[in-house]
Amino acid sequence: MAMRSHYCGLVTEALMGETVTLCGWVNRRRDHGGVIFVDLRDREGYVQVVCDPDRATTFAAAEGLRNEFCVQVKGIVRARPEGTTNDGLKSGKIEVLAHELKVLNPSVTPPFLLDDDNLSETTRLTHRVLDLRRPAMQKNMMTRYKVTMEARKFLDANGFIDIETPMLGKSTPEGARDYLVPSRVHDGAFYALPQSPQLYKQMLMVSGYDRYYQIVKCFRDEDLRADRQPEFTQIDIETSFLTEDEIRDMFEGMIRNVFRNVADIDLGVFPVMSYGDAMFKYGSDKPDLRVKLEFTELTEVMKRVEFKVFSGAANMDGGRVVALRVPGGGVAEGGLSRGDIDGYTEFVKIYGAKGLAYIKVNDWSLGREGLQSPIVKNLDDNALGEIIARTGARNGDLIFFGADKAKVVNDAIGALRVKIGQSAFGRKNGLFEDRWAPLWVVDFPMFEFDEDNQRWSAVHHPFTSPKDGHEDLMDTAPEKCLAKAYDMVLNGIEMGGGSVRIHREEVQSKVFRALKISAEDAQLKFGYLLDALQYGAPPHGGIAIGLDRLVMLMTGAESIRDVIAFPKTQRAQDLLTQAPSAVDEKQLRELHIRLRNPQPV
Amino acid sequence: MAMRSHYCGLVTEALMGETVTLCGWVNRRRDHGGVIFVDLRDREGYVQVVCDPDRATTFAAAEGLRNEFCVQVKGIVRARPEGTTNDGLKSGKIEVLAHELKVLNPSVTPPFLLDDDNLSETTRLTHRVLDLRRPAMQKNMMTRYKVTMEARKFLDANGFIDIETPMLGKSTPEGARDYLVPSRVHDGAFYALPQSPQLYKQMLMVSGYDRYYQIVKCFRDEDLRADRQPEFTQIDIETSFLTEDEIRDMFEGMIRNVFRNVADIDLGVFPVMSYGDAMFKYGSDKPDLRVKLEFTELTEVMKRVEFKVFSGAANMDGGRVVALRVPGGGVAEGGLSRGDIDGYTEFVKIYGAKGLAYIKVNDWSLGREGLQSPIVKNLDDNALGEIIARTGARNGDLIFFGADKAKVVNDAIGALRVKIGQSAFGRKNGLFEDRWAPLWVVDFPMFEFDEDNQRWSAVHHPFTSPKDGHEDLMDTAPEKCLAKAYDMVLNGIEMGGGSVRIHREEVQSKVFRALKISAEDAQLKFGYLLDALQYGAPPHGGIAIGLDRLVMLMTGAESIRDVIAFPKTQRAQDLLTQAPSAVDEKQLRELHIRLRNPQPV
Repeated sequence: MAMRSHYCGLVTEALMGETVTLCGWVNRRRDHGGVIFVDLRDREGYVQVVCDPDRATTFAAAEGLRNEFCVQVKGIVRARPEGTTNDGLKSGKIEVLAHELKVLNPSVTPPFLLDDDNLSETTRLTHRVLDLRRPAMQKNMMTRYKVTMEARKFLDANGFIDIETPMLGKSTPEGARDYLVPSRVHDGAFYALPQSPQLYKQMLMVSGYDRYYQIVKCFRDEDLRADRQPEFTQIDIETSFLTEDEIRDMFEGMIRNVFRNVADIDLGVFPVMSYGDAMFKYGSDKPDLRVKLEFTELTEVMKRVEFKVFSGAANMDGGRVVALRVPGGGVAEGGLSRGDIDGYTEFVKIYGAKGLAYIKVNDWSLGREGLQSPIVKNLDDNALGEIIARTGARNGDLIFFGADKAKVVNDAIGALRVKIGQSAFGRKNGLFEDRWAPLWVVDFPMFEFDEDNQRWSAVHHPFTSPKDGHEDLMDTAPEKCLAKAYDMVLNGIEMGGGSVRIHREEVQSKVFRALKISAEDAQLKFGYLLDALQYGAPPHGGIAIGLDRLVMLMTGAESIRDVIAFPKTQRAQDLLTQAPSAVDEKQLRELHIRLRNPQPV
Repeated sequence: MAMRSHYCGLVTEALMGETVTLCGWVNRRRDHGGVIFVDLRDREGYVQVVCDPDRATTFAAAEGLRNEFCVQVKGIVRARPEGTTNDGLKSGKIEVLAHELKVLNPSVTPPFLLDDDNLSETTRLTHRVLDLRRPAMQKNMMTRYKVTMEARKFLDANGFIDIETPMLGKSTPEGARDYLVPSRVHDGAFYALPQSPQLYKQMLMVSGYDRYYQIVKCFRDEDLRADRQPEFTQIDIETSFLTEDEIRDMFEGMIRNVFRNVADIDLGVFPVMSYGDAMFKYGSDKPDLRVKLEFTELTEVMKRVEFKVFSGAANMDGGRVVALRVPGGGVAEGGLSRGDIDGYTEFVKIYGAKGLAYIKVNDWSLGREGLQSPIVKNLDDNALGEIIARTGARNGDLIFFGADKAKVVNDAIGALRVKIGQSAFGRKNGLFEDRWAPLWVVDFPMFEFDEDNQRWSAVHHPFTSPKDGHEDLMDTAPEKCLAKAYDMVLNGIEMGGGSVRIHREEVQSKVFRALKISAEDAQLKFGYLLDALQYGAPPHGGIAIGLDRLVMLMTGAESIRDVIAFPKTQRAQDLLTQAPSAVDEKQLRELHIRLRNPQPV
């Protein structure tokens, strides 16, 4: 005999009068008018079970029920009495009159109520098995599954095939820090867990598989920020014989499809913006286009002013001066307060800014007298005129300034732009559009100068193809060399990135030289790639989408940990199983390693 | 402009007269009658490209082509001249007359021809990128993909959802050896890569996810046999609220579906056999039912014979005597030769047998005179009569005997049974049925006695539920306690195994006690499971299918390494990337470990 005939949450009036057998958990038990009501919960939702005293055994069993008992109920579906229906539930029009009730497994009292929304993360992760019972978490996991299944269906329909690449790979001390796995068979040797299947997927293209994908765990042993995990999941894709535009169209189609089919969201066609434009207008390579604020470039204008803070930055090699006009920010009632401005001044310091100059435009018809600011006295009339004209400021606006090395200005004022836009003030004043704002950022630079090591490093990764005609710039002007690299951005968050790869061995070697990787070193670390490229490697490219972030965005979850079943803490611990943990000396001996500090963990 | 309009292998007569743009690899170039023929290859197959001297540039380009060049061809589809069609190819009725030909990437001369079938495995794994271009490998990878996609579709349709479990888990020194990952953040602590997501999937059931699956990498650091890899892939499934029969039906349905949809093979309904019957009749818990030979039990009969080899084994505690009748094995022409029998005698020694007694039944109407055997003189008439009667031997048959500890007899004669059945002799004499032979083996014992450690150990794993009513046998007669465990067998190979799990904490604790795991140890190692079981854990069970073996069986591949894109050797090495390898001292220092034998790898 089957244990269950229907899911609790799916019993509806279509089953009226029928006998059903349900299994689930006691969400709540109420005694009301001599009758016991049990809200029974399973993955699909709730159903109301009624136990009346006419059936003595069942009633007695119901009296013993406590929260989170796992029970089986057999009963008849009937309409709820008038006035007691619940439109919020699929099963809200009916209830199940219990004929039989069996406790499949009792529960001790849970350490918290499942509907408590104020649990600490430590409590939630320690009792993850109960935390995962919460309907919000179940919804997140279900959405995550649907995202992967829709992605798979789309990729399948487009001829992509899932091919597994190794987890036990080779350590390449480029990029982030590897997780290492000591080898037992090879004394002194280590595997590395993959930071991504990048080289394997490129080799699969060389092998002619044409269209590859994998939804795959990747690993980075880095200090964790709020939205990072030691192990994370990528939708990893690669294709041959498509141009950069075709590749982007394909993956844009996939994401659009996923949002439509999973969340009924139409993302529309993604706008495309060059990296240069994005930095110029927003100071960010992943601008949140929901925020309707833009930078005003003032570097040229400020080169000749007396005010050293501005002219110093404007004349500095790689310096930048920008304004950020905040419409309505200067209004006395409802504008930004002294406290707001002080707060923002502290905020931009996180990004290395030394301060935050501003001008309130009270009444420009009065000229400089109509401006309120600690810095106005340092600026001549011409400069003030240029500021007002170029920013297009109107009375009641407030203008912030950034003046420093370009990186500091971009980071600080770029972050400020988003912070103001997303603030209550910004939302009230129409500076924030509540919509889905996807974006492609393209034409990234190939290289950025690594000040610490005094050499050029790859912005994307060293397997990225330069733009057509930019190959020679690698030697002559690396800073001008652009790449066929693209990032997919949604609401100011980078969802993924990819590139057209280098498919010719001589171009790949040239990039390694530009990165000051010696031929010997290149051979040692990437010899198998260079080798593969010599055998008629096809033009190819791809993308990697961060699944965790994608699902976080789609579900509106506050943390990446809310869309991962068993995440690690920011100290990289699993609070449920207590991993990592000490291991036996015998295990270490077999792996030919010893602890540097042999003491209890 | 798109680089490609069609796959090479899919250009058919439906495109007659149309212009196509193809990309692919030069499989072969032939010059014939002043015209150049190029077999162009891509993932979907081959197409014949014709370059005639009328188009001088294209012809010149074609003259430069060598094997494995990656090229783009634009041309017109036309019929092949009569008499030159190739029915073996989808594109066999047409050819493409090239108008334009572009080398996308040349190739150096490959180290071997792709159609060479006699390559060493070392050569193939070292040059895996080229090896993976071989159509046989491409077919294997495609089949592997289809298997996973069909499994996903089936599971999706049945309400199963894919939930990812951690790769960086906790080491539990039960079972096989773990791969360890040193923690940088926690000095002296280690993660372990999962041997299976067993406990995580059980916890997901406790969390109410109801139906879970994952196609997931698992890891075991064991010495590798021919069909083992350090990392392997499981189709891992778990469900709540289904009975053992329902669970088996569900997964049988999945596998039947996969075989039908991927390979057009109808496996039919799987027979179900108890572990006890399987051992009794075939000496194996994964009998190959294609072999039409069975054991004859002789233990009781041999208890009183003079012949010590038989009576000793029959009277030994845990001893067994069996016969294996081989119909036609005793025939002079076409039966088993002296050499065959000597070979089998050596063969059974691998399994610990000390020898291999046999009787040839020449003419039983003559009584013992009609039997030919070194052992007949040691057996009385009654014993001989029982042997002939019980085995049902006829003239011309040959009877082998096993007499030893039951394990030795089962292993040796069980393996001999399969070897004879699958031999040329067996196939010729109808002892082998060439079909797909699936089978469920059920009712495994809960425990087996571990002679080395002088204690009971779990046959399946310690989370397996005993059969209803067998709970108390754990204390009173562990050897009689059966489990709700089942293995899925195909053609004598274990494709997967699973069980109904324990869902009550007190039963789980009882099993730990039976296994002599102290309460303290159980808490330390499995505390989070015991804890989870207390919160209304539902009845649940599942299975894990070995994907690599499944695909190997389905494709008829000779090695598991032929169905894995980048496998490791039996010394656990990746010959392509040279993993594992030495790492920097700095990396080790960050992980708080040092080498025991600091020397070059």
